[in-house]
Amino acid sequence: MNDVLDSLTGQAAALAEGSETPISLAERALDRAERKADLNAFVALDSPIVLDQARAAAERRLRNAPRSLIDGIPIAVKDNFLTRDYPTTACSGALPWEAGGQDATIVSRLRDAGAIIFGKTNMHEWAYGATNSTSSFGPTRNPHDPSRITGGSSGGSGAAVASGIVAAALGSDTGGSVRIPAAACGIYGFKPSYGRASRHGVLALSWSLDAPGPLTRNLPDIQLLLPYFFGKDPKDVTTANSKELGPMPRKVEPRLLRLYGKGLECTSEVEKAISGALATSPCSLENCEITSVSSYFAAWETILHCEASSYHASQPANKRSGYSPVTQAHLEAGEQITAVEYLHAQSIRAHFMTVLLKELPAWDALVLPTLPVVAPRQGEDWQLFGGRKVTTQDSMTWFCWLGNLAGLPCVTLPVANPGGDMPVGMMLMGRPGRDEELLAIACRVQEQLKEYGSVE
Amino acid sequence: MNDVLDSLTGQAAALAEGSETPISLAERALDRAERKADLNAFVALDSPIVLDQARAAAERRLRNAPRSLIDGIPIAVKDNFLTRDYPTTACSGALPWEAGGQDATIVSRLRDAGAIIFGKTNMHEWAYGATNSTSSFGPTRNPHDPSRITGGSSGGSGAAVASGIVAAALGSDTGGSVRIPAAACGIYGFKPSYGRASRHGVLALSWSLDAPGPLTRNLPDIQLLLPYFFGKDPKDVTTANSKELGPMPRKVEPRLLRLYGKGLECTSEVEKAISGALATSPCSLENCEITSVSSYFAAWETILHCEASSYHASQPANKRSGYSPVTQAHLEAGEQITAVEYLHAQSIRAHFMTVLLKELPAWDALVLPTLPVVAPRQGEDWQLFGGRKVTTQDSMTWFCWLGNLAGLPCVTLPVANPGGDMPVGMMLMGRPGRDEELLAIACRVQEQLKEYGSVE
Repeated sequence: MNDVLDSLTGQAAALAEGSETPISLAERALDRAERKADLNAFVALDSPIVLDQARAAAERRLRNAPRSLIDGIPIAVKDNFLTRDYPTTACSGALPWEAGGQDATIVSRLRDAGAIIFGKTNMHEWAYGATNSTSSFGPTRNPHDPSRITGGSSGGSGAAVASGIVAAALGSDTGGSVRIPAAACGIYGFKPSYGRASRHGVLALSWSLDAPGPLTRNLPDIQLLLPYFFGKDPKDVTTANSKELGPMPRKVEPRLLRLYGKGLECTSEVEKAISGALATSPCSLENCEITSVSSYFAAWETILHCEASSYHASQPANKRSGYSPVTQAHLEAGEQITAVEYLHAQSIRAHFMTVLLKELPAWDALVLPTLPVVAPRQGEDWQLFGGRKVTTQDSMTWFCWLGNLAGLPCVTLPVANPGGDMPVGMMLMGRPGRDEELLAIACRVQEQLKEYGSVE
Repeated sequence: MNDVLDSLTGQAAALAEGSETPISLAERALDRAERKADLNAFVALDSPIVLDQARAAAERRLRNAPRSLIDGIPIAVKDNFLTRDYPTTACSGALPWEAGGQDATIVSRLRDAGAIIFGKTNMHEWAYGATNSTSSFGPTRNPHDPSRITGGSSGGSGAAVASGIVAAALGSDTGGSVRIPAAACGIYGFKPSYGRASRHGVLALSWSLDAPGPLTRNLPDIQLLLPYFFGKDPKDVTTANSKELGPMPRKVEPRLLRLYGKGLECTSEVEKAISGALATSPCSLENCEITSVSSYFAAWETILHCEASSYHASQPANKRSGYSPVTQAHLEAGEQITAVEYLHAQSIRAHFMTVLLKELPAWDALVLPTLPVVAPRQGEDWQLFGGRKVTTQDSMTWFCWLGNLAGLPCVTLPVANPGGDMPVGMMLMGRPGRDEELLAIACRVQEQLKEYGSVE
């Protein structure tokens, strides 16, 4: 399955040397999408739209005038990013939010660079869940085992990249929605620091937690895509201080801090995989307990529910009537939370950031498993680990919400799983705004993992 | 009444030339405080504490080693600023918040500069009201007419400066609490841009609206004090981007925009005073209507109530039991507001800022009366103006809340009142972060008012 054409960098090289054309790449992706239709990764994909873009890119390549390295490369887009050429539905039974007409800022930047906006990927309805089991288009299936879920909410993007349909896809992440499907499907996912990536045109879930991010087959591909995410966007005030992607600074010996404590348990299978990966790490490693995890988690959930209910309160009733009962119930619950409770959650959040950024021993990256379990089977309501019985939903966001609550850049990379056949992801979290440093540390850990020879 | 020693600059000059000493200034202030005790301006004032500080300052002056221009000058402090030498009660029947032991950052900076921290001034309980009628120490009285209120919540600071007890006093402003008593008492008051002045050690009312500010007898005195307010304070994260006071840039022709519209009415007496003052202004003047004022006001009130209730929710029950019934009722009402309503108010606030900062015709300062009425009589529940019957409380914040909701720097200056005997204040509001520019414009307007000869 590890074809050189599965990665962006591989496709870019093939285009540059002429062994592939934008049209051959587009046809390859369309063909694969058709053959892997059972994964239910795409909710909108139109061959003529794809081929039109491919032909335009091919012309530019023929004239030796490509707009960028990724000119002519297909990229899939989660169905909560507005796109000029496809409707955007957030996989809700509601009317499409937008029937087309404008692109999200990131989509527009990629399109300007010549990327082929390939199609819209399946997602958990309104991104309000992490299993991808609730979608008006039905659940996605995990390419490693179709009887298992992809995780979500960017599950279609995870399946599309992990199955080799496209080399890269866009996702959004409020409590792990990029990292969860990336880990569950055995690929890479990156959530930028809060406020670093433009959210204009990405339908909101919880505006103080949301961040868009890429899912890819390797780390260099993330680096190739981040310039289209970063930098000021006049249409998104939260990016007012966002810097363009800078050089990746290399620390002599990055300090990794592995967090543990009550509320941070995982299965022994996952524990073994993470410990094995860390044993190969070239970085200094310390273990550190954090307490009150359940109170921080409750703060994240409160903020999420209040902001989601606030956002959806402004939706017209005819759209809201199409939401699934579980999304309706979430929103109604969020409407009951008082402002004092919301503000209390924000104060817990501020305390959490102080703990992470000022009170822990000095660190360059925090380490956790991305998920406490491997991808659950479709229809499983509960997961058992660490002596707990946890809903499948909560087990998906188990570790990931920490990065959203604190606004940290986060990356998940696949590590070897000596105890099973399903992928395991390791998560590294960096200091706010230092996305480049995090990526540099991840590359360093990754090189060592390759030498160790344990990642497929 | 206009003694040169009524101003900071006058006192500083007298100290420098030796015609006064810190001890004579302290004794003068103590004597005046005693003679004007009926104003009820002070809630804590201790002669030995004052004279100890004065003696230390006098020694420094004798050694020709004053710490600053204001070394040895008495400055009064609103009773919601923590002070090392006096208890802090926020004029609530509750236990003192702090019996002493630490200074608010601004108090500490002034003390380091040698200023005499003179005493604690009366205020509206917890700053949660703008009349100064609700205080565990009883109401303050207006030096211009003791049968009238000072306005609040920094009413004691207003009375102390307007009556010539001290040349300057500290206040805090969430919906006008510096500007209201300054205007009602015929002096100057300045509310900095949100996040420019340290709030560490100032008991909160509504943290996204609160700003501490000075009350003085002229504009140069404000300039003399702002360096102690501005600049980063590691103890207040909202000052992370606060710049020290910079030079005052002079615009060739500052553009004033006088706002009007439904919800911005005032009495004909106030209208006449403001129009007269503006007629003398050297600035370009345009009138501009704004709409939806009542919706912006409701957003300000919602944010205020939610944040106040959130802050007080963390107070121990034994303290809360001492609050006045009206404050209790406010706090209980605030607890009923939902997070969705609070977040909706924040979105209206964002829209309001867009209107003010981006959609209005280009402006350097916005102009409004500071109050729609002159200082009301004690015990009056209602004010009549512009065809409306408005509670005295709402008539006090009538114009001032706009500056807090948008985070603008604001200044009030007294103008001649041809239609009556009580003071009228004119308010100028600047662009966020451009406090220096606002002060420069105010100075320019002020010079012209003096030439016109109409301000007492």
